[in-house]
Amino acid sequence: MKELTEKGKMAREAALFLAQASTSAKDDVLNGVAEELVESAGSILGANQTDMKNAREAGLKGAIMDRLLLTDDRIASMAEGLKQIAMLEDPVGEILSMKKRPNGLTIGQKRVPMGVIGIIYESRPNVTADVFGLCLKTGNAAILRGGKEAYNSNLAITRVIQKVLTKNEFPAGCLQLVENTSRESAVALMKLEEYLDLLIPRGGAGLIRAVVENSHVPVIETGVGNCHIYVDQTADIEQAVAITVNAKTQRPGVCNAAESLLVHERIAEEFLLKAGKELIKHKVEIRGDKKVCDIIPEAVPATEEDWSTEFLDLIISAKIVSSMDEAIGHIRKYGSGHSEAILTEDYSNAQEFLNLVDSAAVYVNASTRFTDGFEFGFGAEIGISTQKLHARGPMGLKELTSTKYIIYGNGQIRG
Amino acid sequence: MKELTEKGKMAREAALFLAQASTSAKDDVLNGVAEELVESAGSILGANQTDMKNAREAGLKGAIMDRLLLTDDRIASMAEGLKQIAMLEDPVGEILSMKKRPNGLTIGQKRVPMGVIGIIYESRPNVTADVFGLCLKTGNAAILRGGKEAYNSNLAITRVIQKVLTKNEFPAGCLQLVENTSRESAVALMKLEEYLDLLIPRGGAGLIRAVVENSHVPVIETGVGNCHIYVDQTADIEQAVAITVNAKTQRPGVCNAAESLLVHERIAEEFLLKAGKELIKHKVEIRGDKKVCDIIPEAVPATEEDWSTEFLDLIISAKIVSSMDEAIGHIRKYGSGHSEAILTEDYSNAQEFLNLVDSAAVYVNASTRFTDGFEFGFGAEIGISTQKLHARGPMGLKELTSTKYIIYGNGQIRG
Repeated sequence: MKELTEKGKMAREAALFLAQASTSAKDDVLNGVAEELVESAGSILGANQTDMKNAREAGLKGAIMDRLLLTDDRIASMAEGLKQIAMLEDPVGEILSMKKRPNGLTIGQKRVPMGVIGIIYESRPNVTADVFGLCLKTGNAAILRGGKEAYNSNLAITRVIQKVLTKNEFPAGCLQLVENTSRESAVALMKLEEYLDLLIPRGGAGLIRAVVENSHVPVIETGVGNCHIYVDQTADIEQAVAITVNAKTQRPGVCNAAESLLVHERIAEEFLLKAGKELIKHKVEIRGDKKVCDIIPEAVPATEEDWSTEFLDLIISAKIVSSMDEAIGHIRKYGSGHSEAILTEDYSNAQEFLNLVDSAAVYVNASTRFTDGFEFGFGAEIGISTQKLHARGPMGLKELTSTKYIIYGNGQIRG
Repeated sequence: MKELTEKGKMAREAALFLAQASTSAKDDVLNGVAEELVESAGSILGANQTDMKNAREAGLKGAIMDRLLLTDDRIASMAEGLKQIAMLEDPVGEILSMKKRPNGLTIGQKRVPMGVIGIIYESRPNVTADVFGLCLKTGNAAILRGGKEAYNSNLAITRVIQKVLTKNEFPAGCLQLVENTSRESAVALMKLEEYLDLLIPRGGAGLIRAVVENSHVPVIETGVGNCHIYVDQTADIEQAVAITVNAKTQRPGVCNAAESLLVHERIAEEFLLKAGKELIKHKVEIRGDKKVCDIIPEAVPATEEDWSTEFLDLIISAKIVSSMDEAIGHIRKYGSGHSEAILTEDYSNAQEFLNLVDSAAVYVNASTRFTDGFEFGFGAEIGISTQKLHARGPMGLKELTSTKYIIYGNGQIRG
């Protein structure tokens, strides 16, 4: 696809510039874009209204419409995000290790930008500014292929960014928006391995699946979160109720919300009577196995499918287990490797759960809702990886970099 | 493919066992296999003779036949490799960082095995033992799909390994060899994302390309090395001649050998007269641009294709450039991102070359032949990555691991 090849070439040129740009020059651009976004709010909101009108006419529904909507507050929040990224430490150029070998070679590993990063995303226009900020700070050029329904909003934001880039003598190729929003352009981006170093899909399970199956470019999979809370027999009941309710209800539509509750049989009745009451008060539907339904009359029977479902809603599956091993086996069978918690006062069980549960984030006595770049102290987040290659769990600025070896010699040859 | 699904399930079970296996238990297996390989040399060599006979009858040629051949020495060298891996530090379980957050959560990042690693390789049967050693030490189960021509040799080695695994009460699923050596089994392995965490192709450019384009499993690309030596105008001539000859001739058939020589015009005549003489003495064919051919009468004219070719032979392309920038531009255009060296006495040029050349390993005043896990001090090597995701450059044990976040709380909920 001609558009993508051209954008790929421009991105490569921009990446070359960015790899040498100073931290202060990059931060000036980030702060400049933050200001300009707020000053240009009128034109961005106008473009967004066009997208909203088209979406309504196309019959799009509630949740998508909310994701698509921009407001003055949301624009202010994009600007604030960029200012915060400007304040973070620049990871580029850090020397991770430097050692002298017996033959006198001094070998160091230096953090460098990835190069060119492609992002395929759906209806949230704020991703345009967020991704730009993270990529610019880490010295990467970005090619964005946003959803058709958000095109006018994305374009308005991109124009603001490119205006500030040009004013600061940065190439406009640092951030490019793909004009063609057909399915073909997404597929073409997946085959653009000549120009792209990394491709990150941000969106629903269908999009991520398609990218993993079709991409020739290395992918980071930011995936599904079917997160579990296991209430061990020695759990502090009050704490366990508070954590369960928080993990399920504090923000049910996100990937680190709990979707499934496993309870040791010795604590089941006492815990479930209290937790059930609180969950129901928070309008949570409980889908339980037979024993859970016997304890909580409001619970409905869970189907086999419920155990592996990421509800993203006020629904939780619940099961009584006879041992921690059974709980771990259940998580291994149905979990998605995102975040799981054990609630326990038993030292050995806590350590064993941490060791045996093979997920990106494993908790003792805390809510799974903390799996998040900001909560982990990274100051920014590009997504939460559920794969094991390169990055696992919340990804901050470092995860958008690669390394190279630099070697200082004085005439060494290999014998 | 039924065989692969079954092997995938067994590998998952074995991975669960391996993730909990102690370092000393793993090292006992490695040392046990080392002994047993030497003791079983007779049966392994017998199987190898069958492969060699079949290969001869199929009309296979010199280089492949040499890669396929096993001898007592080569078996001893496999055994020695396993003993060395046993002596290396176990990377699994290392805590990379652990910090307390303001809310009291203690968040650490722990090194864990990848899980199940697939390897697709071609005719070298020693890869079977090498990959087993690296994977076992890092707690990973391995599914190996070797080449058809080496099947009997690979099977004999696998049987020795599985015998020792069983004797040490490790599941045989720690190492499995795919029996079906058709093209279909390689493709099926690329789609085995349900069971595989990582796929590494080891072999020629065609194999690697096919895996990158078809795999649903995350891949590490170990690629082509079109390595450059740039002789800057301030280079120490004698040192530069020695490094150039070493990088080209010490072992021309490997990916870190130099394939292209770029020489600053101000030093070209003096350097090329001496280097040309030495290269020709080492039977190197020089393919030069017009100016090189004017200086070295034995040189032949280079074609456009020569600049991007990994010769893996006693051939070098050579070009005279008018500046370091031209050299860097040439490397950017034709290089493969593997290893490049600048030979210079100029401080600023050395630093700029290290910064601007975007390759896995960039050298000042040393031979590119050092890009190697052993030379870098890793004690082992699974390959040299030319991609930017996860690992770049020589990969040792650490690159076969992932991480997970472990979080210790005392009742934290998100507000």
